[in-house]
Amino acid sequence: MGYDLVTFGEAMIRLSPPNFRRLEQTPVLEVNVGGSELNVAVTAQRLGLRTAYVTRLTRNALGRMIANKAREHGVDTSHIVWTDGDRVGVYFVEFGASPRPNAVIYDRRDSAMARIRPGEVDWEAVFSGTRVFHTSGITPALSEGAAKATEEAVRVAKGMGLKVSIDLNYRARLWSRERAREVMTPLVEAADILLTTEEDTERVFGIVAESYEEVARKLAERFELEAVAVTIRETPSVWRNAWTAIA
Amino acid sequence: MGYDLVTFGEAMIRLSPPNFRRLEQTPVLEVNVGGSELNVAVTAQRLGLRTAYVTRLTRNALGRMIANKAREHGVDTSHIVWTDGDRVGVYFVEFGASPRPNAVIYDRRDSAMARIRPGEVDWEAVFSGTRVFHTSGITPALSEGAAKATEEAVRVAKGMGLKVSIDLNYRARLWSRERAREVMTPLVEAADILLTTEEDTERVFGIVAESYEEVARKLAERFELEAVAVTIRETPSVWRNAWTAIA
Amino acid sequence: MGYDLVTFGEAMIRLSPPNFRRLEQTPVLEVNVGGSELNVAVTAQRLGLRTAYVTRLTRNALGRMIANKAREHGVDTSHIVWTDGDRVGVYFVEFGASPRPNAVIYDRRDSAMARIRPGEVDWEAVFSGTRVFHTSGITPALSEGAAKATEEAVRVAKGMGLKVSIDLNYRARLWSRERAREVMTPLVEAADILLTTEEDTERVFGIVAESYEEVARKLAERFELEAVAVTIRETPSVWRNAWTAIA
Amino acid sequence: MGYDLVTFGEAMIRLSPPNFRRLEQTPVLEVNVGGSELNVAVTAQRLGLRTAYVTRLTRNALGRMIANKAREHGVDTSHIVWTDGDRVGVYFVEFGASPRPNAVIYDRRDSAMARIRPGEVDWEAVFSGTRVFHTSGITPALSEGAAKATEEAVRVAKGMGLKVSIDLNYRARLWSRERAREVMTPLVEAADILLTTEEDTERVFGIVAESYEEVARKLAERFELEAVAVTIRETPSVWRNAWTAIA
Amino acid sequence: MGYDLVTFGEAMIRLSPPNFRRLEQTPVLEVNVGGSELNVAVTAQRLGLRTAYVTRLTRNALGRMIANKAREHGVDTSHIVWTDGDRVGVYFVEFGASPRPNAVIYDRRDSAMARIRPGEVDWEAVFSGTRVFHTSGITPALSEGAAKATEEAVRVAKGMGLKVSIDLNYRARLWSRERAREVMTPLVEAADILLTTEEDTERVFGIVAESYEEVARKLAERFELEAVAVTIRETPSVWRNAWTAIA
Amino acid sequence: MGYDLVTFGEAMIRLSPPNFRRLEQTPVLEVNVGGSELNVAVTAQRLGLRTAYVTRLTRNALGRMIANKAREHGVDTSHIVWTDGDRVGVYFVEFGASPRPNAVIYDRRDSAMARIRPGEVDWEAVFSGTRVFHTSGITPALSEGAAKATEEAVRVAKGMGLKVSIDLNYRARLWSRERAREVMTPLVEAADILLTTEEDTERVFGIVAESYEEVARKLAERFELEAVAVTIRETPSVWRNAWTAIA
Repeated sequence: MGYDLVTFGEAMIRLSPPNFRRLEQTPVLEVNVGGSELNVAVTAQRLGLRTAYVTRLTRNALGRMIANKAREHGVDTSHIVWTDGDRVGVYFVEFGASPRPNAVIYDRRDSAMARIRPGEVDWEAVFSGTRVFHTSGITPALSEGAAKATEEAVRVAKGMGLKVSIDLNYRARLWSRERAREVMTPLVEAADILLTTEEDTERVFGIVAESYEEVARKLAERFELEAVAVTIRETPSVWRNAWTAIA
Repeated sequence: MGYDLVTFGEAMIRLSPPNFRRLEQTPVLEVNVGGSELNVAVTAQRLGLRTAYVTRLTRNALGRMIANKAREHGVDTSHIVWTDGDRVGVYFVEFGASPRPNAVIYDRRDSAMARIRPGEVDWEAVFSGTRVFHTSGITPALSEGAAKATEEAVRVAKGMGLKVSIDLNYRARLWSRERAREVMTPLVEAADILLTTEEDTERVFGIVAESYEEVARKLAERFELEAVAVTIRETPSVWRNAWTAIA
Repeated sequence: MGYDLVTFGEAMIRLSPPNFRRLEQTPVLEVNVGGSELNVAVTAQRLGLRTAYVTRLTRNALGRMIANKAREHGVDTSHIVWTDGDRVGVYFVEFGASPRPNAVIYDRRDSAMARIRPGEVDWEAVFSGTRVFHTSGITPALSEGAAKATEEAVRVAKGMGLKVSIDLNYRARLWSRERAREVMTPLVEAADILLTTEEDTERVFGIVAESYEEVARKLAERFELEAVAVTIRETPSVWRNAWTAIA
Repeated sequence: MGYDLVTFGEAMIRLSPPNFRRLEQTPVLEVNVGGSELNVAVTAQRLGLRTAYVTRLTRNALGRMIANKAREHGVDTSHIVWTDGDRVGVYFVEFGASPRPNAVIYDRRDSAMARIRPGEVDWEAVFSGTRVFHTSGITPALSEGAAKATEEAVRVAKGMGLKVSIDLNYRARLWSRERAREVMTPLVEAADILLTTEEDTERVFGIVAESYEEVARKLAERFELEAVAVTIRETPSVWRNAWTAIA
Repeated sequence: MGYDLVTFGEAMIRLSPPNFRRLEQTPVLEVNVGGSELNVAVTAQRLGLRTAYVTRLTRNALGRMIANKAREHGVDTSHIVWTDGDRVGVYFVEFGASPRPNAVIYDRRDSAMARIRPGEVDWEAVFSGTRVFHTSGITPALSEGAAKATEEAVRVAKGMGLKVSIDLNYRARLWSRERAREVMTPLVEAADILLTTEEDTERVFGIVAESYEEVARKLAERFELEAVAVTIRETPSVWRNAWTAIA
Repeated sequence: MGYDLVTFGEAMIRLSPPNFRRLEQTPVLEVNVGGSELNVAVTAQRLGLRTAYVTRLTRNALGRMIANKAREHGVDTSHIVWTDGDRVGVYFVEFGASPRPNAVIYDRRDSAMARIRPGEVDWEAVFSGTRVFHTSGITPALSEGAAKATEEAVRVAKGMGLKVSIDLNYRARLWSRERAREVMTPLVEAADILLTTEEDTERVFGIVAESYEEVARKLAERFELEAVAVTIRETPSVWRNAWTAIA
């Protein structure tokens, strides 16, 4: 029957001290699974759509924890690529308590998903009957191989008539603005739907405008997009960031 | 493609005090999902088979917890019957510490699964391409409706050429020996595989013999079974019973 | 010497996930004892009065937990009716975090208290020397038997010269407005003190007025009450509901 | 109606690291209430007797925790002496894991119970209708005032015809053998029942014999006792000591 | 090389129920180390200074916990005075939840630090090369011996050319205003830096003024101080007090 | 004054599910610090020696946690090399429950310690006045740079007259037997003390003998060692492995 939505990206084990404790001193860590593409699939599934999540995972307890979490929420995991090598990325989140901000330590280098290469996912099989494909700018930022695998996925999706949705999500820790522009330009050109912010639009594409509506209009024109969503990020309090990845 | 195994029965929320605390005094309870047919499906799935679990659940957080747990382990839950009424059964387990034995409070009456009626599950759809159907003597013991629904499931399974596996599992709290004999006799006659103990065999069918091998032989003859497994229950220490339902 | 206050009603085991977790996903539940008539007895005892709490409980660890909690706070439990049958009601409370509201699953049907019948409590002994009897509209709403047992208690109390206090507390999940009116009318006519809200007064007695003072005056007139307390429920934030039943 | 049993002694707050953690490093402590005379009252009450527990407590949350724990189990606490001064004793127990033994830090000096003086308890009221009075050698060891208060209690109990039961329980940390002999001799002479060990009998009374039966016989003769219980303490493993004070 | 800062005072074990539970009912207590002079040393060390903390501790797990906590943060503990006698002070903090205020039970009498006497610390060794010495008004308030030991420390510090910093910190539970004035006057006369509040300044020295700036000016004049810090304590919400001693 | 003992090696963050839970399903992880050279330093310090621990750590909360743990126990950390790059190694330990064995996931590649290079530690300063230097075969196995840094440390230690102690500790996951032999041979030739097992001795040096005494004799002869300790590893039960790294 195919899926309403297929998402593609990395999920990591999130470790965070309970009760606003300091990471440096905590005797225990709470374990969650985090990753924006996985979150999108879970949310869509809970809203009633049929979804699949595609990623690459190491075949150990941490990798299984990620796949199990997707399955727990009904997301199809049968297209996940499993490897005996590499590692599962982890990140440590210390939730702040005003005036102390949140602090995050990412430890994702050389993860199984960063080591993905084109040809590892059978996209024709995944996309058969699927309506929408979604990924984010984090996925191609993981490595050169991941960038090529993302390009492959988008190309096959377009070829098979799927709508392509991309969340620009620029991460300065992962790549430079120049490299992001180079990689993201053809991807967004192929996309039908773009999610972004005014800041990321400027940083990656150098597009600025008077208002976010104008930013959206310019993006739609330049990349021939069907829909552009510009997220307005108000300065959030520490508390408002303290949401749980999958809940 | 169909399933290797479909199981059918009740799962409940298991609530147990941590660290061998007394239930009467505990400030917290650990939450697990328990049910022998669900356990069989999960175990088979983890061993690599394709399985589905069929039950009837109330559409609330407790019902979803049970379905999510099955899905987490990869068991298909798409044939579960959902209702807005009834309730999800719970049971409280106080793990003993020698010489104090385990203690269990069952609170399962009028559960959604006990209220199941024939015709609610589309067994033809469930069994299409399936190899084995498994249930236990607990399922028909839940109520008259559940007994009829079990008979229906076994009848359709046989008609579609599935192997039928039954775990006798006599529960004196749920029904009398006479009623168990009346209901279980045609079910076991239809079955290909029987799991039982010497004690249950005597209590339900009045069959006794010199050895468990002889018990198995007599059962195989009388019910024309392909395989009979007689579990030898050694007197277990309290500790040996303290396993987790799904782990 | 007798009691200053005797209360009569149901108490249940309250199970709630810690730290605003979702019930559907929680690995642990915090255990508390909840019930408005028990709360009234505990509060009065802690303020220095001599109190007794009357209810009907199953003789198992959950029933003892409820009686123990009353005793811990000094409330007399010697008039509780114990049964080997029935069950102890439970309810699951998921505390919300804005914008998610609190969610409650009640599972109280066929509880020991719902199965109480007139004649099971020796009210003459209980009320000997007692000054005030308190119950709520939840108690007679539990079942027909509980309604008759409440009527019996109020009748004996009046006959022995006690002040009778009733908290109207209309619960639409338990009975219809019509049935509530039919049962509560004679009870409130016998009462000296009434606690209610504008909403419940309208729903049960059809009384509306310009102001809550006027509502109170009308109630006092119609039912010949000594005192009427009308609780003004401001729209509370999720947090303000997050109190612990007995603390 | 009076009590079957009244016990008299000190109870303390017991603080212990969970899961065999080291006290020096633990981030949390489990809280229990401990005290041998309280334990005796709770056990007797749970076995169906009517009991009261007499002690002296500081009127704060820690003192209330001790009285609440007795009440939770149905033990009468109405004769407890409350003071605004002094303190509630605490002790820290680190449960060992072989080969590391248990370790205890007592911090009980100047506790409310150690500061008790004769005349503070109305023993005539407490003992009216009571059958048995029980205390241990720890109570008079707490201080000179506590020794005099214990003598007073035993004297009134004998005068009112109660059976007196004493657990010798010699604690070298609290007093010398000479002082113990001086104080305990008249108390045991007044007693009807004595609980002791071979070791304590030798340390306090200098009585040694071939067998524990002979020790019991000698004690019964010398102190004109009705019953003597000699506890045989096998060398227990660390685990066997790891019981919870009140469970 | 010497220290940038040496602090001198008592640290205690802080025990507090988690999640705003009531102390009277908590099954667990969180363990922290608290003491203002220790906090000052830890904070200065984390900001990059070289610090030492001087106190007197009982040689047991609780004493070691305090020294370990200082060492964990890099504070030198080699000048701590260890004793086999006395005890480590504890205090119980129940964090309030509006409208319930925080509640504290101090249990610090006869602690090892309260039993300190002059001559026990080799201040010449401690202060060799040190720039600043800091203590508070709590230290001399602990006992007469502690007052004399504080005077000794201040005298040696001045003699060796250190800057002396004093936090007035008047505690009515520990001593009277008169005794505080008598002891603190020569200490503040010897000091270079004073931390205080308007309230404490009035209570100890009887100094009042129009504004806190004027209070500071008067204190600087009267005691010939280099710097005066007057803390303005806004009425804080319960939450704002809920900080962790060492974090 | 110098140290009695300096140790050199990697420490990692150890994450383990509580109560024998499965890693795949745990909602929390207990946090400890593990590393054999750190353990040796902590143990020696607790036994009364003056010790320092040398390693290379990333300057973040995880790195500080490791240094803090060493300091907590009094081990000097002033010679630790800090870097803003690289990462802190982590490992996940799932404690087994018979018949399920322990399971470990190491995630230590490219850690700060694996990236150490010769010249980063000022060994002359570290060793001034020091008596013994200790490291293990894990340290040079981490990377080629770490091997060279270990050789440098041993060379300087010998040159300054320290005793050198080496724990052979062969880890097949980190390097081949051939590479281990090549690197360890000159290190053990320089050593005075060797800790090893019969198995590791055979795997790394190809030395076998009738008895462990003979193995020790052969090692002492071939490498001119002062002392050889051969650990006899009995087949330990799962439980006996379940020790805490630093306790």
